[in-house]
Amino acid sequence: MSRRIRLDLAYDGTDYAGWQVQLGQITVQSLVEAALTRLNGKRAVSIRVAGRTDAGVHARQQVCDFMFDGGASDDDLAHALRHMLPPAIRPLAVRGVSGEFNARKSARGKHYRYRLDRSRYGSPVHARYALHQPHAMDLDALHDALGRLPGRRDWSGFTGSACDVDDRVRNLTVAAYSARGGNARFDFEGDGFLTHMVRNLVGTLLQIAAGKREAAEIDEILASGDRRLAGPTAPPHGLHLWCVHYDDVEPGRMPDRS
Amino acid sequence: MSRRIRLDLAYDGTDYAGWQVQLGQITVQSLVEAALTRLNGKRAVSIRVAGRTDAGVHARQQVCDFMFDGGASDDDLAHALRHMLPPAIRPLAVRGVSGEFNARKSARGKHYRYRLDRSRYGSPVHARYALHQPHAMDLDALHDALGRLPGRRDWSGFTGSACDVDDRVRNLTVAAYSARGGNARFDFEGDGFLTHMVRNLVGTLLQIAAGKREAAEIDEILASGDRRLAGPTAPPHGLHLWCVHYDDVEPGRMPDRS
Repeated sequence: MSRRIRLDLAYDGTDYAGWQVQLGQITVQSLVEAALTRLNGKRAVSIRVAGRTDAGVHARQQVCDFMFDGGASDDDLAHALRHMLPPAIRPLAVRGVSGEFNARKSARGKHYRYRLDRSRYGSPVHARYALHQPHAMDLDALHDALGRLPGRRDWSGFTGSACDVDDRVRNLTVAAYSARGGNARFDFEGDGFLTHMVRNLVGTLLQIAAGKREAAEIDEILASGDRRLAGPTAPPHGLHLWCVHYDDVEPGRMPDRS
Repeated sequence: MSRRIRLDLAYDGTDYAGWQVQLGQITVQSLVEAALTRLNGKRAVSIRVAGRTDAGVHARQQVCDFMFDGGASDDDLAHALRHMLPPAIRPLAVRGVSGEFNARKSARGKHYRYRLDRSRYGSPVHARYALHQPHAMDLDALHDALGRLPGRRDWSGFTGSACDVDDRVRNLTVAAYSARGGNARFDFEGDGFLTHMVRNLVGTLLQIAAGKREAAEIDEILASGDRRLAGPTAPPHGLHLWCVHYDDVEPGRMPDRS
C-alpha cells in the first residue's frame, strides 16, 4: 500500500555537493533516495524537500517527503535509514502524513542561521561550521542595516542569478545578529528564501559592519532589485538550515540548540 | 641568540594520535616540532607542554614552550607557523618569556570541558566534538556526585594505569554540569590532572546519571584509590583542554567561547 512519508534530517554538508541530485556528484538527496529505493524493493523513490541547500551548507532540521510502497513501519524505516546513511546524514524523524503534505509547499516558514567565529585566529573546532571573521565590526551600523530588512518585499537584489523563480516576494520576519564570546550568528526567519538569499544578505551585512558601505544601501538594493549593488555571496560553510515550521507540528519539537 | 618562547595553540584532535611524539604516528607535537625545527635552521627544537592530550582530544588553548635560536621575531614566527601547520592546528600566540617559564610547571591550573550532545539521534555537526548521550539523566544524582569531587585529594581511583606519576594528589576546584538545549557539558578546573582523569570522571558520572550506580560510590572510589571501582573511560572526542592558567597572564585574555 502506497503512502506519503515525511522525513526530517540533519546533515553536515561539508563533503556533499549540496542537496539536489547532480550527475556525477554525491549529494544528500542522491544518498537518501538511493537508500529509500533499496528499502522500497528497488522501485525508485523520489523526494521533495523543504529547502534545497547549496554545496557545503548544513542542516540542523531539513524536511522532505516521498511516496513509499514498502510494508515497513515508520519506526522500521527510521531504523533502517539510520544504518544505511553515513554518519554525516542523520534521520531525525519518520512519520506517515496525509497525501496533501508537501515538504516545500506546506512549510509555513524557515529559520536559517549563519555562524561566525570571531576569535582572532579561528578555532579549528569551528572551522567547518562557522565563517572566521576576526575583524572589527561596527555593531551600530550592522543593527541599523538589519532593521531595514524585515517585511514582505521583492528580494531580487539579494537573489543569485541561478534563481529561476518568477515571484521573488517573500516575507522576512526576523533578521538578527547576536554574539556570545567568540561565537556570533545571524538569524533569519521568513516564509521563504530565494537562491543564495541568506548568503548574499550576510555578505552585504559584513561589508556594512566593516565600514565598506552604508547601512542605507540596503534600501537601495531592495528598491532597485539589482543584485550587482549587493555585496559578495558569503561562503557556504557558515550557513545552517536551522528549522522548518509547519502548522500541524507542535512548537518546541526540536530542542533549542545553539 | 637563544631564547625561550611560549606558544599557545588550538587544535582539532580528531585526526591525530594525541599530543606526544610517537614513532610512526602523526601527533600534534611531532608536527609542531617539525615546523619549529625548520624555522630554527634545522637545529632540532624540542617542546614542553602544559598538558599532554590523548588521541582524539581537542584543545581550545594548549600551551607549550621551547628554546629557539633563530633570528625571527615573535610575530614572524607566529606568521610562519600559521602557514606551515595544517588548518586543524592553529597557533594562537607566540611570545618570548623568561628562561624560568615552563609550560607545565608554571601552570597555576587547567580547565577541561567535556561536551555532550543530548539530542535524540545525534547532530552531525557535533559528532566530532561531543559525546552523543541521548538517554535520560538523573540530574539530582549527578549533582550529588559532582558535589563530592572538589577538594585536594588523591585521584588514584580515577587515574589510568598508564599514569607514571607517584604523587597523585591534586586540587580540584570546579566540577560542574550544565545544559542548554541539546548541548551539555562537564567543566573541571584544578591545579593539575592525571592520565585519563577527566574521562574516567565523566564515565563514572554518566553511570551515576543513568542510575547504574549511586552518587555515594564517588566517596568509595576516592577513598580506596582503586581504579577498578570507577566507571569506564569516556571516549576522547568529547574532551577539550579549554584553557591553562598562569599567574603572569591577565585574566580574560582568551575570549569566552562556549
